[in-house]
Amino acid sequence: MNADNRHLESKKIIVLGGDGFCGWPTSLHLSNVGHEVIIIDNLSRRNIDNELEAESLTPIQPMGTRLKVWKEISGKEIKFYNTDIALEYDHFLKIINDEKPDVIVHFAEQRSAPYSMKSSKNKRYTINNNMNATHNVLCAMVESGLDIHLVHLGTMGVYGYGTAGMKIPEGYLDIEVETEAGERVKQQILYPTNPGSVYHMTKSQDQLLFQYYNKNDRLRITDLHQGIVWGTNTKETRQDERLINRFDYDGDYGTVLNRFLMQAAVGHPITVHGTGGQTRAFIHIQDTVRCVQLAIENSPSYEDKVMIFNQMTETHRVRDLAMLVSELTGGEIAYVSNPRNEAPENDLHVRNDLFLSKGLEPITLDEGLLQEVTNVARKYAHRADHSKIPATSTWTKDQLPGVPKEKITDI
Amino acid sequence: MNADNRHLESKKIIVLGGDGFCGWPTSLHLSNVGHEVIIIDNLSRRNIDNELEAESLTPIQPMGTRLKVWKEISGKEIKFYNTDIALEYDHFLKIINDEKPDVIVHFAEQRSAPYSMKSSKNKRYTINNNMNATHNVLCAMVESGLDIHLVHLGTMGVYGYGTAGMKIPEGYLDIEVETEAGERVKQQILYPTNPGSVYHMTKSQDQLLFQYYNKNDRLRITDLHQGIVWGTNTKETRQDERLINRFDYDGDYGTVLNRFLMQAAVGHPITVHGTGGQTRAFIHIQDTVRCVQLAIENSPSYEDKVMIFNQMTETHRVRDLAMLVSELTGGEIAYVSNPRNEAPENDLHVRNDLFLSKGLEPITLDEGLLQEVTNVARKYAHRADHSKIPATSTWTKDQLPGVPKEKITDI
Ligand SMILES: NC(=O)c1ccc[n+]([C@@H]2O[C@H](COP(=O)([O-])OP(=O)(O)OC[C@H]3O[C@@H](n4cnc5c(N)ncnc54)[C@H](O)[C@@H]3O)[C@@H](O)[C@H]2O)c1
Ligand SMILES: NC(=O)c1ccc[n+]([C@@H]2O[C@H](COP(=O)([O-])OP(=O)(O)OC[C@H]3O[C@@H](n4cnc5c(N)ncnc54)[C@H](O)[C@@H]3O)[C@@H](O)[C@H]2O)c1
Repeated sequence: MNADNRHLESKKIIVLGGDGFCGWPTSLHLSNVGHEVIIIDNLSRRNIDNELEAESLTPIQPMGTRLKVWKEISGKEIKFYNTDIALEYDHFLKIINDEKPDVIVHFAEQRSAPYSMKSSKNKRYTINNNMNATHNVLCAMVESGLDIHLVHLGTMGVYGYGTAGMKIPEGYLDIEVETEAGERVKQQILYPTNPGSVYHMTKSQDQLLFQYYNKNDRLRITDLHQGIVWGTNTKETRQDERLINRFDYDGDYGTVLNRFLMQAAVGHPITVHGTGGQTRAFIHIQDTVRCVQLAIENSPSYEDKVMIFNQMTETHRVRDLAMLVSELTGGEIAYVSNPRNEAPENDLHVRNDLFLSKGLEPITLDEGLLQEVTNVARKYAHRADHSKIPATSTWTKDQLPGVPKEKITDI
Repeated sequence: MNADNRHLESKKIIVLGGDGFCGWPTSLHLSNVGHEVIIIDNLSRRNIDNELEAESLTPIQPMGTRLKVWKEISGKEIKFYNTDIALEYDHFLKIINDEKPDVIVHFAEQRSAPYSMKSSKNKRYTINNNMNATHNVLCAMVESGLDIHLVHLGTMGVYGYGTAGMKIPEGYLDIEVETEAGERVKQQILYPTNPGSVYHMTKSQDQLLFQYYNKNDRLRITDLHQGIVWGTNTKETRQDERLINRFDYDGDYGTVLNRFLMQAAVGHPITVHGTGGQTRAFIHIQDTVRCVQLAIENSPSYEDKVMIFNQMTETHRVRDLAMLVSELTGGEIAYVSNPRNEAPENDLHVRNDLFLSKGLEPITLDEGLLQEVTNVARKYAHRADHSKIPATSTWTKDQLPGVPKEKITDI
């Protein structure tokens, strides 16, 4: 059974960060399957492009054009509010009170680990934006008195990946502790995190916010711990070039697979950091939008704790991906030194039974990769700015003694 | 051996929040034993008094007077900067770069659980102030490139107190996890928290910040998980009435024992919430300042993880304290319904071996209580505003279904 056909009842859904890489195709998908969609976004991601003098490889259109075209093509209206949910709480609350959504999908955070590490200003922006954004969402849910289901996008990267060969579970860990009396008692705790960047740390702090508001105010929350998203388009964004999704390839926002594809397409060497021995979890953007839909349709009840799902479909070693892309394109691989403070090689075992059990039929790299090379990377290669390809953020101050090599990931 | 006499080398110490209840006597104590002390405070606590139309029972003097008198009495100079460390990062960094401290003691957070729960504005202020304050401290330490030891004040309340009869350890928990291969592997994790208010949650988030910056930038950090502080004066603040410390008795900032003392002194019934079966950990303000000194003198090295100590000296059930105060003063006890979302009765087992092993000789309730009643509560009873005595914050929106009774504490 395909997730798209399982739609049961139309809901009113606010998508926070609906102008972004995941948020835009999710908004269109949810609108397409019959939900009423409202986007809130402060366009900070486009402003960061200005700051970094970088640009999406694909020619993304302004929000006004995007929504007009979608209306023409689908007959469906998506409302848009340009609001900063971290800084404009009163306006944000008013939107919630006026629109009375059934669901809020929360993508609206600064999501690049390298960007979060560029300077003390970037670290501080990431903490301030992400903490206040998430907390304002929770506050507004409580203050509105409405019964809203929150779906948040987290990352599997909070775990620092693959400690001690453990299978990354879906959110919780069963432990045994010893009491004063010497008895062993079972407890379930949030799976301990090991964030490798300020960005990842905000996701780890988000988890505490969710746990608290779920416990104290009985908020219904689903937290999707996503792998690295690859691909560009979905069924909906493919319908008109003006609906095209963003494709980041710069050293800060470009994630590993999209960077490889684009490097190959423009004849740049495929740059692998270190040995490329890091294993990462991946998901195609088409599956992201389906998983969010599944999460919306399987909402928790008041008695449930925060529901945490791993949102990924396959794991690969970075150098294997590079070789795959190299075979497909004839591009040559260059091994460069790693700007990150991370372990050179790691395994990764992820549990993702939940989404599979709910009917997800994943798009695999084997199927999607060639299409991506031909229809996106090669097609828009002329728009690439080669100077933006190298990664420039460094992780720690070199003069500090004893800084250990730690595990870290992109997203 | 008394902690006061163990002073080895003079350090330059910045006290963040040095105008507050703990920060002021700590600043004087550190100055007195020979350290060079610099206070940073934005006076937000005095401004909150204005907002709540409440006042310290004791007549605290403005910072200018406090420092002038200290200079007269001790011959020692304490510098003061009125700066908001959460909002004025550039100024804060400049102070660090100019002063080049060896140690930063960080008291500068919004510290009342009831205040943090009063309204959505208060929740948001607490998150924004505490997250940015702590993160700015860490950022400035990294950006300055100086080798600074951070001593932070946390609270034992992050654990929600006494889950499953466990002894509250000093920060970490050893667990065993199962790997993919079915082996059992030992790991040490941050002791899982169970915060009962937005205030407590910020302390739990602080822990993640410390763990991250310790790991990534090798910052040297001591986190003191403090119990409820009681008492008013220390050796130094007693030297002149104009050096007197604050004594909060209002429903938001007054902590349990000080509220009892003051109620008894003014002839108000000693109000116990619920059955008074909650067990809490306590420490006298004189011991707080000594523990901070001990923490400064026992600084971690680069290789150490964040050092976490429990800073408390005895535990008591709330109703036993009420009875103690009642016996001492003849005051009558009134049991009122509990405005908090917490368990009615709990045990508490706390590990505090570390401070005891380092030479702390605690002041016990038996010794200090009568003095406090006579020299503070009775002496300043005429300054009390009786209308400020009841606690008014409530913890959850009643209309939300299924809200459970959870464990919570004052500080
Ligand atoms: N892209 C990935 O590979 C990936 C992987 C795992 C998790 N995630 C998570 O999914 C979410 C979305 O990621 P993305 O790749 O779409 O990122 P993105 O940067 O493309 O989109 C985020 C959107 O949120 C908006 N935004 C940020 N702060 C805001 C604020 N304060 N107020 C209003 N809008 C704000 C931005 O303008 C942007 O349009 C993030 O939380 C990210 O951590 C992404
Ligand atoms: N008082 C207790 O019983 C107790 C118990 C456990 C832990 N603690 C912790 O000890 C610390 C100090 O507690 P306290 O009782 O002295 O509180 P307090 O409110 O009396 O003092 C805090 C001081 O910090 C200042 N401050 C707050 N935010 C600031 C900012 N952004 N910039 C500059 N200054 C700022 C305030 O003006 C105030 O003077 C707190 O972190 C608290 O959580 C206190």
